[in-house]
Amino acid sequence: MGDCCETEQGVYVDSLLNLEWLRKSLVREEDSIIFSLIERSKYPINSRLYDESAAASLLHLFIKESEAVQAKTGRYTSPEENAFFPASLPPPQHKLVETFGTYQGDDDRNYAATAASDLACLQALSRRIHYGKFVAEVKFRDSPQDYTPAILAKDREGLMKLLTFESVEEAIKKRVEKKAMVFGQEVELQENGNYYKVKPELVSQLYGEWVIPLTKFVQVEYLLRRLD
Amino acid sequence: MGDCCETEQGVYVDSLLNLEWLRKSLVREEDSIIFSLIERSKYPINSRLYDESAAASLLHLFIKESEAVQAKTGRYTSPEENAFFPASLPPPQHKLVETFGTYQGDDDRNYAATAASDLACLQALSRRIHYGKFVAEVKFRDSPQDYTPAILAKDREGLMKLLTFESVEEAIKKRVEKKAMVFGQEVELQENGNYYKVKPELVSQLYGEWVIPLTKFVQVEYLLRRLD
Repeated sequence: MGDCCETEQGVYVDSLLNLEWLRKSLVREEDSIIFSLIERSKYPINSRLYDESAAASLLHLFIKESEAVQAKTGRYTSPEENAFFPASLPPPQHKLVETFGTYQGDDDRNYAATAASDLACLQALSRRIHYGKFVAEVKFRDSPQDYTPAILAKDREGLMKLLTFESVEEAIKKRVEKKAMVFGQEVELQENGNYYKVKPELVSQLYGEWVIPLTKFVQVEYLLRRLD
Repeated sequence: MGDCCETEQGVYVDSLLNLEWLRKSLVREEDSIIFSLIERSKYPINSRLYDESAAASLLHLFIKESEAVQAKTGRYTSPEENAFFPASLPPPQHKLVETFGTYQGDDDRNYAATAASDLACLQALSRRIHYGKFVAEVKFRDSPQDYTPAILAKDREGLMKLLTFESVEEAIKKRVEKKAMVFGQEVELQENGNYYKVKPELVSQLYGEWVIPLTKFVQVEYLLRRLD
């Protein structure tokens, strides 16, 4: 066959040539495209990013260097992937990527795309959790008389109590569960069943067990240093 | 104030200390977290990515190198951003990032986050468009008798006609518009108005004017080389 699949053999490439599987993939890519557009809409134009008065725009450099990192992780050995700047990309460098064994059940070898996806998750979680510092600062400024004694006494438990509003936490957990149902549903022109791409109750649990406690941990640590 | 905002002054940092703005940002981050979880769920576990039998896991290396690229683009000069591997990150390198002028209306200086977001859009679009090659290959294998004469005659128009199904294209455009409405809505525990983060009709237009024509362009180019 043509140049689309020469680099790879086996089960995965076979699945790429199954029309039903391709249809599903194309429909799934719609979600990725729309999520990425929505995420881009979080930021203003930031037109300096595209300024080509220098030799190359900042975006150009960013994409080129990001693609190099992803190439080292083997992104462009996947038959579905095509780099924007394919010239002089580095080869896959890690011994895990270089080992071409058989595919496992848990393994489609999209390591770089998976890692990029993990990084996006981790950065979103980190950003959300570290916002706690700004919230803590505002709360401190609003009522220093409440926080100052606990800070001076290094009273972590007291600070934690001041920062805890159970009804707010419950509302957040309910809202993220609802969001996971809305954003994770299969959208078809005809109505269909309730299948969610990510379990909504797991997202609520992630918030209850990790995001909210870690945010409060960051807040307490921030406040403990506030009067230094 | 504390260490959360020492590096920056001005309008932007002031807005970080406005409770209503912070609340909105935290709610918006929920969407980013959930989108990123849904995107991660596209891939299997890919457990080799996390294998720490080498000095560092592939994910570790990927994040470290990606953060270096983002640092060069100034990501960690934003007060909301915190690197996972902050030791020995390179400084912002591009003259655009290094120039600290006043903020413009279109500019919040989140250049690296914006560029990462652009890259995610572009990669999703590219992946979707290049899937066309696999679709073209399947179609060719299913009915070589239809495609072979047009390929041999280098008849682009004829190939384009064979690949065009207007009712399918209309259904795709309608579906992506519906998806943009579902995924882009503001989700609150109480119902609220119809505000969409990205204009649904623009997504439909993006598909109609760019994604579908470019996919067919890729398919025609693929098929023209199919018998070489």
